[in-house]
Amino acid sequence: MKMAHLITNCSFSTSPAVQTFSSSPNYCRSVGQLQNSKSSNLSLKSCSRRQKKSYVSCASAAVQGQTQTPLTGSQQAYEHSSSKPKKVMVIGGDGYCGWATALHLSNKGYEVAIVDNLVRRLFDHQLGLDSLTPITSIQNRVRRWKSLTGKTIQLFIGDICDFEFLSEAFKSFEPDAAVHFGEQRSAPYSMIDRSRAVYTQHNNVIGTLNVLFAIKEYSDECHLVKLGTMGEYGTPNIDIEEGFITITHNGRTDTLPYPKQASSFYHLSKVHDSHNIAFTCKAWGIRATDLNQGVVYGVRTDETALHEELSNRFDYDGVFGTALNRFCVQAAVGHPLTVYGKGGQTRGYLDIRDTVQCVELAIANPAKPGEFRVFNQFTEQFSVNELAKLVTAAGAKLGLEVQTKSVPNPRVEAEEHYYNAKHTKLIELGLVPHLLSDSLLDSLLNFAIQYKDRVDTAQIMPSVSWKKMGAKPRTVSV
Amino acid sequence: MKMAHLITNCSFSTSPAVQTFSSSPNYCRSVGQLQNSKSSNLSLKSCSRRQKKSYVSCASAAVQGQTQTPLTGSQQAYEHSSSKPKKVMVIGGDGYCGWATALHLSNKGYEVAIVDNLVRRLFDHQLGLDSLTPITSIQNRVRRWKSLTGKTIQLFIGDICDFEFLSEAFKSFEPDAAVHFGEQRSAPYSMIDRSRAVYTQHNNVIGTLNVLFAIKEYSDECHLVKLGTMGEYGTPNIDIEEGFITITHNGRTDTLPYPKQASSFYHLSKVHDSHNIAFTCKAWGIRATDLNQGVVYGVRTDETALHEELSNRFDYDGVFGTALNRFCVQAAVGHPLTVYGKGGQTRGYLDIRDTVQCVELAIANPAKPGEFRVFNQFTEQFSVNELAKLVTAAGAKLGLEVQTKSVPNPRVEAEEHYYNAKHTKLIELGLVPHLLSDSLLDSLLNFAIQYKDRVDTAQIMPSVSWKKMGAKPRTVSV
Repeated sequence: MKMAHLITNCSFSTSPAVQTFSSSPNYCRSVGQLQNSKSSNLSLKSCSRRQKKSYVSCASAAVQGQTQTPLTGSQQAYEHSSSKPKKVMVIGGDGYCGWATALHLSNKGYEVAIVDNLVRRLFDHQLGLDSLTPITSIQNRVRRWKSLTGKTIQLFIGDICDFEFLSEAFKSFEPDAAVHFGEQRSAPYSMIDRSRAVYTQHNNVIGTLNVLFAIKEYSDECHLVKLGTMGEYGTPNIDIEEGFITITHNGRTDTLPYPKQASSFYHLSKVHDSHNIAFTCKAWGIRATDLNQGVVYGVRTDETALHEELSNRFDYDGVFGTALNRFCVQAAVGHPLTVYGKGGQTRGYLDIRDTVQCVELAIANPAKPGEFRVFNQFTEQFSVNELAKLVTAAGAKLGLEVQTKSVPNPRVEAEEHYYNAKHTKLIELGLVPHLLSDSLLDSLLNFAIQYKDRVDTAQIMPSVSWKKMGAKPRTVSV
Repeated sequence: MKMAHLITNCSFSTSPAVQTFSSSPNYCRSVGQLQNSKSSNLSLKSCSRRQKKSYVSCASAAVQGQTQTPLTGSQQAYEHSSSKPKKVMVIGGDGYCGWATALHLSNKGYEVAIVDNLVRRLFDHQLGLDSLTPITSIQNRVRRWKSLTGKTIQLFIGDICDFEFLSEAFKSFEPDAAVHFGEQRSAPYSMIDRSRAVYTQHNNVIGTLNVLFAIKEYSDECHLVKLGTMGEYGTPNIDIEEGFITITHNGRTDTLPYPKQASSFYHLSKVHDSHNIAFTCKAWGIRATDLNQGVVYGVRTDETALHEELSNRFDYDGVFGTALNRFCVQAAVGHPLTVYGKGGQTRGYLDIRDTVQCVELAIANPAKPGEFRVFNQFTEQFSVNELAKLVTAAGAKLGLEVQTKSVPNPRVEAEEHYYNAKHTKLIELGLVPHLLSDSLLDSLLNFAIQYKDRVDTAQIMPSVSWKKMGAKPRTVSV
């Protein structure tokens, strides 16, 4: 397949799909108005202001009745504490982690707005990929959430690389916290070709700079909760600490940022973000939490399981799919588990239910003004070989004969190495992990089996080579 | 002054000034053709290829006669060694360090091409600034060099953020080494407002990514000599090593990238570059030298002193001027030396004649394929207060009564701190430093006095505040 060229202009105007929901009046209602709306109609408006061009689109789903709030949670009390942040902007709230987080926070009583340009859906179109689970439009998602729970999630559809759009969103919503998932988040995607490498670094670095400037300009008390990655650290031969390390050298001692050794243009973009954020905390007094997240697995959270229109996406392909999720799909369809190289690559992993819990803990316990803190966000370490063994054993219990096959490693990475990363700070804040138990693996495998008719086996294999990546936009095998 | 908005599109088409020199034929002559040209006319051609759009402009200055080569140098032998790199692309070769380096390398027998979009000249126009020394166009510079020495410097006028342009330059010139000065290099400029912060990081990071991709694609043996900055390290409370530090932690030991703590969006862009380059050395086998340069002072090199049309620029303003050069201008015009805050800020400094020497040493002793090596490129450490004292003493000898005034520090930085940075690797390669002697200071002060009628005292004061910087493009006091 010859690929269409990437979007390189960061500005997205309001998409036709959003505009089809437009209705008069022409002006965005304020947050208060949206919250108090008694309208029985879904209203989704294009905010064209009289004297200023604006790309901001706001959506509110206000459906009468059906206001049940069927979910409970250990931290529900947050919504009753006036000292806690209440309004959370979830940037990238249509994505895998972002959608689950937006629903979780809304369920916990936070007032939530999603900011997203929906470009993750475009990547699927361009690469010929699809989520294992069918997912509906963000507008339907938000409407369904409202109909089931009575809770409103505002939508701002646009690109954070467009500062005018982002400014309007900040001025309109006035967030107490901004959770920033709004980045191109696939290492293989960033290694397809030069234009995608450049897109990834531009999009991620400039988008984050804009968020920092928006906080400084419009919401200087806003707590930035930024998704980083454990991949920023690489695989050093010493223990990995949480963001900083105390070094004694030639008789003197200092605590410095932990050295970074990222291994893709995507991972590098997160390293760049971390440095930029740390600087603005020092220079401007921004308060920020950098969540260096491990590999996320699973798909269902309490909230997304409520209704099929709330389903989260589930990627199993060679570009966006991550190790454990992909293994479960491979096992479900009788495809050998594809271990890259020797399989000794060890990383931190976590259940998506812990992603949403960790983000909530960070928001509920904000960084101080000027503080740049780093939490390593994962719950357990596994090597790829260990994961393959676990999936093989879980498959056997379900009557599946699971094979494992080593394939040439498309990445440039150590395949056997020391790995010991600290992850106590979120535990200290109250994280109760969902560890990878046999029953959890069973349910993940059963989930994959449930959807196995939707699997495109051509998507399973690695399709991007770190070494071969071209300067010119190139074909990706999918 | 209300400022015109920045260039945000990275693509520059060939400037009218270049096109006025165009003549038939329409095709770029090969390097060999340019070298062997017997034409008595200056020829400067727009390279439009038949079947491909191209922004590449090539210039060669081939003037009959006047082929004297008046300069000598200790490393002249390089040109006679067939095992040494011969063709050097100087990206940013119209700038302060770039121009001096291009001439020096040309003089030493290297075949030199300058790649530059000339945007540094645009910054002066936009901010109402000017070099203390009058500088002529790059076309005149190159033509004058040819007329004096018989040596040709090729010109590629365009933006390295435009990969098509850069590709054409690499394919045409086929460099053995690429010296990359082609970045926005002022910390205050990057801190004026959001749009300039974004411009700086986009321009520097994407430009460098493009250079890396061009090397990978078209000249994979090419040695990248990249200008970094000592500012990447910040001011840690331990000794600063050259790029890497060996850390023993919890009983294990590894040598890791030295932790970075940059203190402006400009310095951060260099940190990002360093991480990106290190990764491509590992993933693709790129050979790279990162020259973490200190603050450069001085202006004359053997080559630029040859003729007024070869003069280098000399910045003394609050945006582009650096400490010692600015102090000399202040002393020359009777303006108090403006010390920011307490004046204990200590940094590494070097004479511009050592900049060109260090770059030459790096080129002559290239990194191995896959090697990412870092040299700290400075010769001496001074605090701002120490520099002020030196200039005061030098001024007194010339009959100048030099005052010093502390002004509020526009930056966010430690004003009293430990500082001990290693800088032995270039010495080991043969660097013979020009230290800041009394006579050198005298000549620098005399140089400033010579040009004092051109000083605009309004440019001298700091005009950019790290803390106040605006999100929207704003007025800069100049």
